[in-house]
Amino acid sequence: MTNHKIALIPGDGIGVDVTDAAMEIATAAARRFGFTLATETFPWSCDHYLATGRMMPEDGIETLRGFEAIYLGAVGWPATVPDSVSLHGLLLPIRKAFAQYANIRPHRLLKGVEGPLRSEGFDILCIRENTEGEYSGAGGRVHQGTPGEVAIQTSVFTRMGVERILRFGFEQARARRGHLTSVTKSNAQQYSMVFWDEVTREVAADYPDVSVEPMHIDAMAARMVMAPESLDVIVASNLFGDILTDLGAAIQGGLGFAASANINPDRSAPSMFEPVHGSAPDIAGKDIANPIAAIWSAAMMLDHLGEAEAAAAILAAIEAATAQGIGTRPGSHSTSDITKAVAAALEA
Amino acid sequence: MTNHKIALIPGDGIGVDVTDAAMEIATAAARRFGFTLATETFPWSCDHYLATGRMMPEDGIETLRGFEAIYLGAVGWPATVPDSVSLHGLLLPIRKAFAQYANIRPHRLLKGVEGPLRSEGFDILCIRENTEGEYSGAGGRVHQGTPGEVAIQTSVFTRMGVERILRFGFEQARARRGHLTSVTKSNAQQYSMVFWDEVTREVAADYPDVSVEPMHIDAMAARMVMAPESLDVIVASNLFGDILTDLGAAIQGGLGFAASANINPDRSAPSMFEPVHGSAPDIAGKDIANPIAAIWSAAMMLDHLGEAEAAAAILAAIEAATAQGIGTRPGSHSTSDITKAVAAALEA
Ligand SMILES: CC(C)[C@H](C(=O)O)[C@@H](O)C(=O)O
Ligand SMILES: CC(C)[C@H](C(=O)O)[C@@H](O)C(=O)O
Repeated sequence: MTNHKIALIPGDGIGVDVTDAAMEIATAAARRFGFTLATETFPWSCDHYLATGRMMPEDGIETLRGFEAIYLGAVGWPATVPDSVSLHGLLLPIRKAFAQYANIRPHRLLKGVEGPLRSEGFDILCIRENTEGEYSGAGGRVHQGTPGEVAIQTSVFTRMGVERILRFGFEQARARRGHLTSVTKSNAQQYSMVFWDEVTREVAADYPDVSVEPMHIDAMAARMVMAPESLDVIVASNLFGDILTDLGAAIQGGLGFAASANINPDRSAPSMFEPVHGSAPDIAGKDIANPIAAIWSAAMMLDHLGEAEAAAAILAAIEAATAQGIGTRPGSHSTSDITKAVAAALEA
Repeated sequence: MTNHKIALIPGDGIGVDVTDAAMEIATAAARRFGFTLATETFPWSCDHYLATGRMMPEDGIETLRGFEAIYLGAVGWPATVPDSVSLHGLLLPIRKAFAQYANIRPHRLLKGVEGPLRSEGFDILCIRENTEGEYSGAGGRVHQGTPGEVAIQTSVFTRMGVERILRFGFEQARARRGHLTSVTKSNAQQYSMVFWDEVTREVAADYPDVSVEPMHIDAMAARMVMAPESLDVIVASNLFGDILTDLGAAIQGGLGFAASANINPDRSAPSMFEPVHGSAPDIAGKDIANPIAAIWSAAMMLDHLGEAEAAAAILAAIEAATAQGIGTRPGSHSTSDITKAVAAALEA
């Protein structure tokens, strides 16, 4: 029987609630499809930071390297640890250290979910660069605390980084409806984004079967709302992908439905799976967080691990539940009720 | 009789169509309210670039300085001049040279307009920093054209720049419903955006009557779609404001309805007024562009020039037309029919 070694980082707030739910469903799917999950839980979080002065131990990355995949709930507890510290101490270094350069986020309406748009027939796959660009962390502050202060934040785009994410995007488009929208802002950012456009044109030559269209981030944000059904695969920089995928979450009914995978396509290191939502301190531990995004993310993990049947069964079970209105409206059902409904559909 | 000296830059594509429409209405309003507009038209555009090698003459900025206000249609014709050239040669330098640091964009549904959201009762004023930040133009490319290429784009935020736009935002919030949302991404951009958050907290101390809430750009994009009615005034950096205002345009029914003002609040130099939309080469010169955003922008100009009554009358005339369904759906009416309807409502 195949055994998959998974590192669990529930993290902060509702990260803990939804990781429990996701693992309950993933374990049930494993049982049904004849494999096992050997999970090890790491308490790395803002509490851990307050206790130890670090979000994860110094050898955290090395520890994680021994796993086939990482499942993360959510990170951040701004009341005690600034987000800039907690995220740069845990989530962002994992994405970078393991070259999880493709952040994949699907946006479509699950059965039974009513989104905020009148439009309903969209099916978008957003591919976000996940290791560099606007998240490079380069920069500094000069004359700090004085009237003459200047803060500098530098985006760094490498050919390696841009080319690999574009190739990944073209591959995904080829496997879907053959259409790729590459998001930039080359009319205002004349170094980084003009470069991205150039590399897009080069890589496009290798994919004559994919139609590619460049689009500015501002126009793209508008289009996600005005004409989401005109989109297939989107490829975007780290920041633009961040923004567009929250927008994608919004049009699919909210962050409770937005799943994500941080993929190392070469499989030279573990990939990481996490819902798009944050730790939501205000509703943490109250059994009211929607676990669907987290469960869907676990399905993406199983798919990545080669358990495509189990992944598909989980997704079908989620939609069997939402089609009955379970978990489709904020506050309509508890975390555990939604999880039970998905589990029941999975057994059926 | 007061005479206002206005520089007109119709620019490219539909910029020309809608500038004509906007000036027809502005002139009619001037006649009705007893003032005059002395307009001078400058042919600065991509055609001008192809003819002269410059988007505007070397002394263009000095020429414009002699006017009370500038009205701009749209800039850009990517088929012949890269956007990175045309925008950096005309639009962006004007915003910077004249310290038009507050870009103001109202987002609400005009009467009779059906937006893409189920939600309809929102009224948002977006204040965008307009002179620095992600649009600083700092950066470069190393090892260009080789596999080891690196492109760098640097955002520069100064205390002067951040503080003045925040103060402007607080003033606007005070004059409206007393609520300000300050948009950053301090969990990922630990220099620029953490700095912005710090200055927000400092300036907030001077506005105890305004409730201020920081929000990350990704969450904010989602909120514009999920709960736009929860927003009053938004203040954001150059790039974030750019993205959010196209999103604002989308939820208000499209770019045909999105007006904007580039304001120099000290009045030490002319302010500039322009619709948010671009030059739309595909529909240029066909008498089908929606002139409402342009006409609304002209109303904002008259308001800035102290002609508040004329501005209000234009806005009322626009809504008298849209309430009858004129100009509310793409393709339903020609540019000239919409302009005629607004002109008729203005006379009535
Ligand atoms: C928490 C934050 C740093 C993170 C990001 O911006 O990448 C989150 O918003 C996401 O989308 O995964
Ligand atoms: C044309 C472009 C450079 C411009 C901008 O990004 O500022 C436009 O999108 C706008 O919003 O005014």
